[in-house]
Amino acid sequence: MRVGFVGLGAMGLPMALNLHRAGLLAGVWNRTGGRAAALAAETGVTDFPAPAELAAACELIVTCVSADEDLLEVVAALVPGLRPGAIVVDCSTVAAGTAREAARRLAAAGAEFLDCPVSGGTEGAIAGTLSIMAGGDEATLERARPALEAMGGSITLMGPVGAGQAAKATNQIMVAGINQAVTEALAFGQAQGLPMEQLIKALEKGAAGNWFLSRRGPTMIRGEFPLGFKVGLHAKDLEICRRMAEEFSVRLPIVEMTLLHYTRLPAHSADEDISALFRLKSDMFTRSGD
Amino acid sequence: MRVGFVGLGAMGLPMALNLHRAGLLAGVWNRTGGRAAALAAETGVTDFPAPAELAAACELIVTCVSADEDLLEVVAALVPGLRPGAIVVDCSTVAAGTAREAARRLAAAGAEFLDCPVSGGTEGAIAGTLSIMAGGDEATLERARPALEAMGGSITLMGPVGAGQAAKATNQIMVAGINQAVTEALAFGQAQGLPMEQLIKALEKGAAGNWFLSRRGPTMIRGEFPLGFKVGLHAKDLEICRRMAEEFSVRLPIVEMTLLHYTRLPAHSADEDISALFRLKSDMFTRSGD
Repeated sequence: MRVGFVGLGAMGLPMALNLHRAGLLAGVWNRTGGRAAALAAETGVTDFPAPAELAAACELIVTCVSADEDLLEVVAALVPGLRPGAIVVDCSTVAAGTAREAARRLAAAGAEFLDCPVSGGTEGAIAGTLSIMAGGDEATLERARPALEAMGGSITLMGPVGAGQAAKATNQIMVAGINQAVTEALAFGQAQGLPMEQLIKALEKGAAGNWFLSRRGPTMIRGEFPLGFKVGLHAKDLEICRRMAEEFSVRLPIVEMTLLHYTRLPAHSADEDISALFRLKSDMFTRSGD
Repeated sequence: MRVGFVGLGAMGLPMALNLHRAGLLAGVWNRTGGRAAALAAETGVTDFPAPAELAAACELIVTCVSADEDLLEVVAALVPGLRPGAIVVDCSTVAAGTAREAARRLAAAGAEFLDCPVSGGTEGAIAGTLSIMAGGDEATLERARPALEAMGGSITLMGPVGAGQAAKATNQIMVAGINQAVTEALAFGQAQGLPMEQLIKALEKGAAGNWFLSRRGPTMIRGEFPLGFKVGLHAKDLEICRRMAEEFSVRLPIVEMTLLHYTRLPAHSADEDISALFRLKSDMFTRSGD
């Protein structure tokens, strides 16, 4: 199976490298050229001049872009080159409705679609241990499985097209609450004068143990917020969650609180890891003495 | 070392049993008699008629009670019987100031004190893998270590008396936020019609992975909230956190939100596991169709 990759961002680049290591990657395309050229030089795969040419050379195309409109643009650009029966696997995080729209446009061009958003951070992308939440036909998933297994440690079919994105939205709400939990608690612990590295080690072994505490706790207490997962991208995802909840006339407290708190961070935090929420929480304690 | 145990609740009873298995437990006392008598019958240790008599027979006494006033009452009841150089290890969750007051009263009676609140749930108490956050003198901790190792998988000295409770308060804030995160996200996922058991399995392998999701997720989605950790006790602990934050003129958003949400649960939820917060979150979606 020849696999093409579109979107070499913080997640996409290591995912494409894992496809290459599995002997599956035939070519890449990226909106900004530098990364695709560098990857092509490193791996020997083709840096295609346009998505349609990439599509013409591959049976399966993985897309990993930032926003809903990016996905629909990439789909439109792929369509003229798509081979009959090709599969497009989208690993972006977009609205479930956008995934269904992409599937409709691809079906009209004789191609199949799976929404396959991922969780596990850049660490999971590099290690090839991502949790992949899939939406689409089971038969299509089975055909795509070799490519998915090169990128993920766990592949779960959640339902028809869109169900993968609904699962990812659930994940992003949980990540928001855990970010609130970890940053608020550690800011409190720091104000109490506790030895923070030992505190994190003790907390991660108890009922508060979580991935984010173990991976982002040690950096946030030093005022460092390396990527990771950008505040700006999480805010975009939480807007999707907000709209999906609004369809039930529901306002979700954690989603609303986190969107509000992200707007209160300094402007440059949009490009920092979401653990930069720690700035806001620790400022509450330091400003209180003013 | 002969160890006595006061407070055979959901956490205390399995902790006392682990001390017995380690050959350390000499006797017990419990405010309500039934549990102490049953444990004495099962293990052959003495069910003492009063805390002072237990104290007279032991070098180390572990206390595990519910509220600040309970701890000070138990300390007062132990004092007349305490042997010189005895150690009282309190595994309750109380305010740091209450721990320091207990230490003062015990020092006046020639005894030593460690605040050793724990995390890890009833599962951790049964398995003897609790995370113990200790406050007090290092030399006292070393003398108490055999008893602590019988109950815990991790023992971390956080600082002087009171520092263990400050670390536990940090833990309870984090647990509140994680409860918000997991219940809100899973209620959203359920409203999306996702297959919930598969969803939990996919989420726990990604960046949202956490102890609470894996242990309480599968029951909450069935509308079951077995103990675990009572809503009423967590609310009491969060009131402690609120007062500790007020000393910095800070109101903590997750603490305030969770205390408010707990008051909105049905009255009988006070004795349910904190995952009963799921009732409130899922009701948002089901009521919205009214």
